[in-house]
Amino acid sequence: MSDMLQRLRDELIVAGQFFHSRGWVPATSSNFSARLGAETLLITSSGQHKGRLDAESGFLRVDLQGVSLDADKRPSAETGLHTLMYQRDPAMGCVLHTHSVNATVLSMRQSQVVLEGYEVQKAFPSVDTHDSCLVIPVFPNSQDIPALAQAVGLYLDANPQTVGYLIRGHGLYTWGVTVADAQRHVEALEFLFECYYRQLLLDR
Amino acid sequence: MSDMLQRLRDELIVAGQFFHSRGWVPATSSNFSARLGAETLLITSSGQHKGRLDAESGFLRVDLQGVSLDADKRPSAETGLHTLMYQRDPAMGCVLHTHSVNATVLSMRQSQVVLEGYEVQKAFPSVDTHDSCLVIPVFPNSQDIPALAQAVGLYLDANPQTVGYLIRGHGLYTWGVTVADAQRHVEALEFLFECYYRQLLLDR
Amino acid sequence: MSDMLQRLRDELIVAGQFFHSRGWVPATSSNFSARLGAETLLITSSGQHKGRLDAESGFLRVDLQGVSLDADKRPSAETGLHTLMYQRDPAMGCVLHTHSVNATVLSMRQSQVVLEGYEVQKAFPSVDTHDSCLVIPVFPNSQDIPALAQAVGLYLDANPQTVGYLIRGHGLYTWGVTVADAQRHVEALEFLFECYYRQLLLDR
Amino acid sequence: MSDMLQRLRDELIVAGQFFHSRGWVPATSSNFSARLGAETLLITSSGQHKGRLDAESGFLRVDLQGVSLDADKRPSAETGLHTLMYQRDPAMGCVLHTHSVNATVLSMRQSQVVLEGYEVQKAFPSVDTHDSCLVIPVFPNSQDIPALAQAVGLYLDANPQTVGYLIRGHGLYTWGVTVADAQRHVEALEFLFECYYRQLLLDR
Repeated sequence: MSDMLQRLRDELIVAGQFFHSRGWVPATSSNFSARLGAETLLITSSGQHKGRLDAESGFLRVDLQGVSLDADKRPSAETGLHTLMYQRDPAMGCVLHTHSVNATVLSMRQSQVVLEGYEVQKAFPSVDTHDSCLVIPVFPNSQDIPALAQAVGLYLDANPQTVGYLIRGHGLYTWGVTVADAQRHVEALEFLFECYYRQLLLDR
Repeated sequence: MSDMLQRLRDELIVAGQFFHSRGWVPATSSNFSARLGAETLLITSSGQHKGRLDAESGFLRVDLQGVSLDADKRPSAETGLHTLMYQRDPAMGCVLHTHSVNATVLSMRQSQVVLEGYEVQKAFPSVDTHDSCLVIPVFPNSQDIPALAQAVGLYLDANPQTVGYLIRGHGLYTWGVTVADAQRHVEALEFLFECYYRQLLLDR
Repeated sequence: MSDMLQRLRDELIVAGQFFHSRGWVPATSSNFSARLGAETLLITSSGQHKGRLDAESGFLRVDLQGVSLDADKRPSAETGLHTLMYQRDPAMGCVLHTHSVNATVLSMRQSQVVLEGYEVQKAFPSVDTHDSCLVIPVFPNSQDIPALAQAVGLYLDANPQTVGYLIRGHGLYTWGVTVADAQRHVEALEFLFECYYRQLLLDR
Repeated sequence: MSDMLQRLRDELIVAGQFFHSRGWVPATSSNFSARLGAETLLITSSGQHKGRLDAESGFLRVDLQGVSLDADKRPSAETGLHTLMYQRDPAMGCVLHTHSVNATVLSMRQSQVVLEGYEVQKAFPSVDTHDSCLVIPVFPNSQDIPALAQAVGLYLDANPQTVGYLIRGHGLYTWGVTVADAQRHVEALEFLFECYYRQLLLDR
């Protein structure tokens, strides 16, 4: 096993433990991936608890089309939403899908979440001031992952600055060059969703 | 002591520690059981804190009628709600009763909790799409456990797809083939109750 | 140092760590005591963080009038609210004062908190059914501790079944025969206060 | 490396871990400093996660004008808000900037937060009764730190009893003679902000 695979796997295990401590990966929801090479990804396997990932059974390698390279292991049904991101950008290093209460609640009520005036928006590399606007789109949920991936891809073509998106009732996808970057983006967006929800309650 | 008993006991101890970290087993509320054999259960004993279960004093064996097989130990007063489930289904492996704030609050206001459109509904084996409907019934609380067990049994006869139920002001019962399955169901339902409560606040 | 003193001190340290993990002992708020003998108490010293109590500097012994028996250590300004309880009842073994957000918020809006229909009410020894009523009175806050202790004493004379009380903007006092009993009462009341607050939000 | 530097660095690392456990230092927000000498500070370096500070890369020394004394390390962009406090008061020993949900939400809706009647107000050295009033001002956010520091300085000239302030959408600054004092002030103010938010929800 390569050193890089071990390092990335360990980083994803620790990320999952942190997300679990916050309640962002309930039951067997969520899935994580990281790039191993130009044509290869490491991704969490189907049906695992993402807060208690086992180094052996919790991961497998897939190619950029999502085909398993580890014959006895099955990738998540949502692998196509991961491979999409790596296909689109050779610098893409990590994709994290989490599943928090706030992401779920907001995504069931709105077609997008618009974040403005928060200093934490600067957690994203394309943002250098709070005086900016982050739009997090919401896609209708579907069990047809290729169709969902196509809708996401079209949106990203038209909105290349997007830093993450929600699927209705289904949580958050965000990404980065490294696992640390993607994890920082999860943490920043979850913070912003909690702020947004608490503002909504006061504004009714 | 059998290996199976030790393994199940340890799984229930760890489940209790996790529930406690989330505040779902306050004071000496809640109780847990797992099947040891065709006619035997392991169940938490009366009056214990379920987040700090002791391997010796925290558990006893009962038969499917709830009679203690460990002469010096007293099972929970609610044992009849556990034995009911094992009597009904030979594949039943674990029953978990937890006691969260959200389960308590929702159960005091509604006669059922209807969950629709959440991806996490797929945590249950009978569900393969978010486009489904989970009904969690609420039973009036009673200190008469045989009467309560009878009401639950009649409901389950009529609604065999039920994945869990609430008792008013008293928390959640859910179950599974393994401890891991039942624990996943607790985590999924608690996630859904928090989503539901947060939606209710916005909808008023 | 007596074995009993060491044991009670260690139980109070662990109780404080648990309360801190829940955010119930912010800054240097709160104080804890336990009975060492007919005329002697162990009590936390003034100005300590109750989530990180030091075995040496965190505690001192006082008599039932609150006079320090450890010359170089100063008891909490609120010692009189502890000694009151031990003077009233020779079976009193532990008094815990905590300071949660919910206890603070509810105490600033109401003259009492009435709890009905919750199964967790059975955490108290005098209660054997949810179909009962717990009244938690709220006393106006005062920096005059003897006057506050007198008001509490008069209320307890008239309402001997009381299981705890709030001071406005200042948190909870509850008690028990053992540290474990008193800790169970804190956990039960904090659970009930969170339920009560969440109900209030829905009822407005 | 001096003993004092090591001790202060370790105290700031532990403070950051505690704040992270509460969610008060999301992503790479927040920054911490402590006084090393009359003209020297220890401060967290730019771009670090404050909940996982590395003893080597996480800190650098700056002078009271904010100039790095460790050639290869870059201080936070907000260093000027730290040096301001040490310039104003030779007894100033620690400045902590944290970034909680409540501090963010309240700062986006109000021009100040007025705290009255809370016992926890006594966590501040200048306060000896709940029957007092703490005013926490809110400054408009700006990426122009010298201008922001000037506005804060003018306010503090006019209001020398101030114990902390908020920047809109950007979190809290508070301080103390020691790291423990400043940390106690963060914990007290965050407790009060949560009380205040929960009151606001009930008052609408």
